[in-house]
Amino acid sequence: MIRARVWNEGWHEQHEAHVLERYPEGIHGAVASAVNELLADEVTVSVTTMDAPHQGLGGADLDDTDVLLIWAHVRHDEVEHDTVQRVVDRVHEGMGLVVLHSAHHSRIFRALMGTTCHLAWRHEGGRELVWTSQPNHPIAEGVPHPIEIDGQEMYGEPFDIPTPDDVVFMSSFSGGEVFRSGVTFRRGAGRIFYFSPGDQSYPVYRHPDVRRVLANAVRWCAPSLGVIPPRVTNPHPVRSGG
Amino acid sequence: MIRARVWNEGWHEQHEAHVLERYPEGIHGAVASAVNELLADEVTVSVTTMDAPHQGLGGADLDDTDVLLIWAHVRHDEVEHDTVQRVVDRVHEGMGLVVLHSAHHSRIFRALMGTTCHLAWRHEGGRELVWTSQPNHPIAEGVPHPIEIDGQEMYGEPFDIPTPDDVVFMSSFSGGEVFRSGVTFRRGAGRIFYFSPGDQSYPVYRHPDVRRVLANAVRWCAPSLGVIPPRVTNPHPVRSGG
Amino acid sequence: MIRARVWNEGWHEQHEAHVLERYPEGIHGAVASAVNELLADEVTVSVTTMDAPHQGLGGADLDDTDVLLIWAHVRHDEVEHDTVQRVVDRVHEGMGLVVLHSAHHSRIFRALMGTTCHLAWRHEGGRELVWTSQPNHPIAEGVPHPIEIDGQEMYGEPFDIPTPDDVVFMSSFSGGEVFRSGVTFRRGAGRIFYFSPGDQSYPVYRHPDVRRVLANAVRWCAPSLGVIPPRVTNPHPVRSGG
Amino acid sequence: MIRARVWNEGWHEQHEAHVLERYPEGIHGAVASAVNELLADEVTVSVTTMDAPHQGLGGADLDDTDVLLIWAHVRHDEVEHDTVQRVVDRVHEGMGLVVLHSAHHSRIFRALMGTTCHLAWRHEGGRELVWTSQPNHPIAEGVPHPIEIDGQEMYGEPFDIPTPDDVVFMSSFSGGEVFRSGVTFRRGAGRIFYFSPGDQSYPVYRHPDVRRVLANAVRWCAPSLGVIPPRVTNPHPVRSGG
Repeated sequence: MIRARVWNEGWHEQHEAHVLERYPEGIHGAVASAVNELLADEVTVSVTTMDAPHQGLGGADLDDTDVLLIWAHVRHDEVEHDTVQRVVDRVHEGMGLVVLHSAHHSRIFRALMGTTCHLAWRHEGGRELVWTSQPNHPIAEGVPHPIEIDGQEMYGEPFDIPTPDDVVFMSSFSGGEVFRSGVTFRRGAGRIFYFSPGDQSYPVYRHPDVRRVLANAVRWCAPSLGVIPPRVTNPHPVRSGG
Repeated sequence: MIRARVWNEGWHEQHEAHVLERYPEGIHGAVASAVNELLADEVTVSVTTMDAPHQGLGGADLDDTDVLLIWAHVRHDEVEHDTVQRVVDRVHEGMGLVVLHSAHHSRIFRALMGTTCHLAWRHEGGRELVWTSQPNHPIAEGVPHPIEIDGQEMYGEPFDIPTPDDVVFMSSFSGGEVFRSGVTFRRGAGRIFYFSPGDQSYPVYRHPDVRRVLANAVRWCAPSLGVIPPRVTNPHPVRSGG
Repeated sequence: MIRARVWNEGWHEQHEAHVLERYPEGIHGAVASAVNELLADEVTVSVTTMDAPHQGLGGADLDDTDVLLIWAHVRHDEVEHDTVQRVVDRVHEGMGLVVLHSAHHSRIFRALMGTTCHLAWRHEGGRELVWTSQPNHPIAEGVPHPIEIDGQEMYGEPFDIPTPDDVVFMSSFSGGEVFRSGVTFRRGAGRIFYFSPGDQSYPVYRHPDVRRVLANAVRWCAPSLGVIPPRVTNPHPVRSGG
Repeated sequence: MIRARVWNEGWHEQHEAHVLERYPEGIHGAVASAVNELLADEVTVSVTTMDAPHQGLGGADLDDTDVLLIWAHVRHDEVEHDTVQRVVDRVHEGMGLVVLHSAHHSRIFRALMGTTCHLAWRHEGGRELVWTSQPNHPIAEGVPHPIEIDGQEMYGEPFDIPTPDDVVFMSSFSGGEVFRSGVTFRRGAGRIFYFSPGDQSYPVYRHPDVRRVLANAVRWCAPSLGVIPPRVTNPHPVRSGG
């Protein structure tokens, strides 16, 4: 049983009526419902926001988490450095991490990438087509080629990330821009998947194909061998000569 | 001084009037002129076609070649296996290779990739935008973001290649398709660059930005350390114990 | 149920008494017994050699194979090009491939790598230590750090392969040499694992830790999504303008 | 002209007589002399330590730096977060970074990697052999295979780093351990090279082959295109429809 936790900074739902109207259960609630619906018997899903104790990411929270999904946009600077370090440590030990949309600029993702994670963007709504570039990847299972999203913010290259292990999805936008919209990374024992569709101004997390990607990602990011703490630097017994 | 050689299968110019009209000097001639014009003092450029002795790729030809550029489309099966092996061996020893457009399906490129190199395509002309995804890469130097090509055949994902070392360029097309249009690989001591723009039915090799990419690619693929033959499997002297 | 097939060129057992004495069931038999023993309920294992019809790798053989393990040494040149192509095609479609020891120089592995696959070697027996460099990788599950192999041929760097997706194991030898002894690659939909321990002159395939690696590799290389043929290059329907 | 700057935390030379005796000019001085000696006309080299204003890594210092080499061991926690961020920003903009020995655990390197950078170690002196695994890499130019270092601390796998772009060198040690001792990464526009030989207790930076690697690394890490600031996330002009 995979224990998934969906974390949301939770600002838009509190301050923008149109977002709350779009997602009465919160963006986190919509993401959670996708995972629940599609992985029913494989998963338990919990939700939390930055306003919970320990910013929703305390040690006890993470003890119960196999895969963490994060959505954030305007409150990146409020995530405390201790919180960032706690999450990063867990990823190194094997917790899976799914990074959604504008969380590309979250402190957590940037700390794991070591780059600025900058990208080009344009907020006018337009069509996004999400193409599968690696058809055999488990995250692409059951996903049409392409996914068509009628309205979505544009995210474009250059996307300042390290070379990904896998580029699973690539998108184009109405303006002709392109973007590596679904990419994987390993950091320590943890698997990371970044997926860009999902702006607060569009009902993208209602899209059945997007929901399929979220569920596939949770399954793929789950630690197959359980938690493996990174080896602490330590003396190694001398071996008999080579 | 880099010795570049441009090789073309040479079928379209002989059989299709519109291609010869577009490229009276041959596609190889147009490519060569780009390299010559932009790398004037750094390069000597020669041209050849499959109809030359040894299919234009004999041992003596390759002895004089630091970087080979290849364009091919309908005569892939006529390239003899000995010719393929000779070119592949040289790449392993350090010769640079620039693979253009439909040469994605050439025996030479497929032998170096180990995959089918299949892709999706559509011949109707449309606009291609070539975006730089790695702005610091030398092949992107001086290249606008994006390059706009008014008419060009569509090449789309999935592109069945091994994970590239670098994805320098990514394209979108009028139909909304996307493609990794400029990718690099190392095989042995040789550097390989695949660049997709350049169909015989459009004057793409007259485009100043495309010409800049061709010149940058020749400079980047040139062997920096000279030719380094792969180490032949051989006995290694026993070293004194570990 | 994973259908594993172990293929061996079968020369040493027929021509060298010490090898037959070491492996009365053939090297293929020893490898098969490891997979059978450790993956009992997950797998069916069959064995074959180059002397079987279609060199043991006919279309019907491969139709029944999810993961192919190959061992070869002195008969590489006898493997027909049609046989090579048939196996390579299946890997592209999703069949897993485990390449053992001197099969690094097999036509099949070289065709999938696009490099010479040369390495340095020394036949004097000595100790090999196989260290895990990626502890979270499923192929390293349950494997001690290091595996100690008392007697084994030396394989050393440089190993002329493309950059692997993962370096799971790295070895040192009595003479102080080093080698990337367990590496993974993806080609099309197929997963490939190369593992170097296993010379015909040493009973390496009796070693319980080596046997564990073989079993883990079969499990890891098995196609998770079933067979996915590479997309044939084909016209793509025109989409409504971007 | 490449402007190289060698930075050292400077603790051992001040507190341990044997280190000062070994390196009267400081470890930084020894590293600087290698670069100066071997790249004479291509480089200007400056040195600094953590005790200089702004910890030796102020904005003005970095304005004059194309390639920064860092050596650190026991004072990692004293490097202020502002200093770390300043260096990381410059790497993203194109400054080269050479990370030496125990600086694997520096805040700067860890911030760029996104991993713990843990490794196994053993302080007893023993022989290290540094083998070239990528002979065509410019950093390996003129370097023997292997470099023999009579006395050096052991650093062993697993080394918790992201998959490197290139593994240029791999080492073995007297105890039979192995290590990826020379690895490259790109982060933004910056090139990074980590090289492990160089403990304060052994005169490793006097070794001519190690000095050659240091000089090659400075040349390779130098920004070929000059400084390229990462694109700040910003609105992108709407393009005319696809």
